[in-house]
Amino acid sequence: MCQLLGMNCNTPTDITFSFEGFRRRGGVTDHHIDGFGIAFFEGKGVRIYQDDTPCASSPVAEMIQAYGIKSKNVIAHIRKASSGQISLANTHPFMRELWGEYWLFAHNGHLTQLDQLLTKPASTYHYYHPVGNTDSEQVFCYILEQLRQQFPEKPSKECLFATIQKLTAHISNYGIFNYILSNGEWMIAHATTLLHYIIRQAPFGEARLIDDDVTIDFAAVTTPKDRVAVIATLPLTANECWQQLARNEMLMFEDGAIVARDCPDETDVMSIKDALAMAAAVGAAPESVV
Amino acid sequence: MCQLLGMNCNTPTDITFSFEGFRRRGGVTDHHIDGFGIAFFEGKGVRIYQDDTPCASSPVAEMIQAYGIKSKNVIAHIRKASSGQISLANTHPFMRELWGEYWLFAHNGHLTQLDQLLTKPASTYHYYHPVGNTDSEQVFCYILEQLRQQFPEKPSKECLFATIQKLTAHISNYGIFNYILSNGEWMIAHATTLLHYIIRQAPFGEARLIDDDVTIDFAAVTTPKDRVAVIATLPLTANECWQQLARNEMLMFEDGAIVARDCPDETDVMSIKDALAMAAAVGAAPESVV
Repeated sequence: MCQLLGMNCNTPTDITFSFEGFRRRGGVTDHHIDGFGIAFFEGKGVRIYQDDTPCASSPVAEMIQAYGIKSKNVIAHIRKASSGQISLANTHPFMRELWGEYWLFAHNGHLTQLDQLLTKPASTYHYYHPVGNTDSEQVFCYILEQLRQQFPEKPSKECLFATIQKLTAHISNYGIFNYILSNGEWMIAHATTLLHYIIRQAPFGEARLIDDDVTIDFAAVTTPKDRVAVIATLPLTANECWQQLARNEMLMFEDGAIVARDCPDETDVMSIKDALAMAAAVGAAPESVV
Repeated sequence: MCQLLGMNCNTPTDITFSFEGFRRRGGVTDHHIDGFGIAFFEGKGVRIYQDDTPCASSPVAEMIQAYGIKSKNVIAHIRKASSGQISLANTHPFMRELWGEYWLFAHNGHLTQLDQLLTKPASTYHYYHPVGNTDSEQVFCYILEQLRQQFPEKPSKECLFATIQKLTAHISNYGIFNYILSNGEWMIAHATTLLHYIIRQAPFGEARLIDDDVTIDFAAVTTPKDRVAVIATLPLTANECWQQLARNEMLMFEDGAIVARDCPDETDVMSIKDALAMAAAVGAAPESVV
């Protein structure tokens, strides 16, 4: 199974601390070694850095770690290939332009019956075509295609959330669909099985990485007005209270806060063990991890 | 004025030597300090690395220099802003997807009367919208838009060359339009004023950078079958014979060789002095460089 990392904030923030722990799962503390990608919105522009080598040892990841790029919206992904070979064309996050904005998408899971979804007439690729051969890029193009066909001009945020929620519920019938999506203004996170988030705001405390012997005192590197939401497949820190998304829960973050939410059943939260077993059952995680 | 660098080869090749000289023009040997971008095709995928700091001192450029990424098609650009502010959204090369392929585009020059071109009915943005506010991204979207509207499916290479040549001739009426374009298979280079190229093949010799005290013996790092075309605004090496494109000449390279050419008048080659003066006259180069 791949792993996702997202950050949405009210002020440009350095993701170095979270990325330090996250990238170690790409070859040191976990087995997600089939490439990685990280993309930072800067205004309307995007820095997108990808590599098909393990994130833990990639020169690109080293550079990112040293550079300390600040952004209000970041999406990262470390890959354990389950659909599509290891290649740059199959490396998340995927990016396309919609309504004069760049959109970024990273997916974790496996959509086993995607062919059935994509052969329906309304879903032909007119505006958006996949370049690689992953289920993830196909479904990203499918979402953008549906949005563009329904809305020639960009609709309101509320309308977008409702439309993407409907599309997501439909796509979820075809497999495991944990994802993070952003247009640089907001960030949407959806869980079929496994996704966590935390919102950090004043009073800030200390946090300790799970994957490395690193501690940070957020109070020393923030202002009292800062608010940062971090989204990750599995919690990145040991001493903070991460919130797990319920099954089929979808959240929209803006300025580090939740601004829209859809949750069919708050009590339906999958155990991490069951989520990994489910991923393994469809070939998206090795048995040994379960 | 910005500067362009392209490489098209018959085998994946490391651009480190050329990029070493080129990047020094981004703050050391020349004044192109308003960001840079370089993109490498890898199969159907693209590594695209951009930064809004001067290329000569950018941590991203340092990483690229150390990594030694190999590719058959590379486009790089160092920017001296003449249209659009300094920001990542305005940093070349620009990338979009067309017919399930990524297309890359970098431009040098200034299209002063672009508004007149883009207000004509056929040129409205239907499939492609600019994200930033440069003339370069606008015209890239215009080219893709025209191609996509004319050809729902990808046409032959010959048809593409002829169509892009017609579009280019038309766009050239609106200002200076030196550019490099690639879909990962071929690379097109067009000069309104200033662009050079060289094709390196066996027997390989030594080359010495103009912008740095660096010499390479290509015979030691190539095989006899290798063929590499390098395209640059101004020659990168002092002891090789670079060919200058005539005014309005357009070349298509594939596997390091010229496979298509359009040249209205071979004898109409602009002097470097006149080309820089022309760029300065439209605000695309500082007077001091002329």
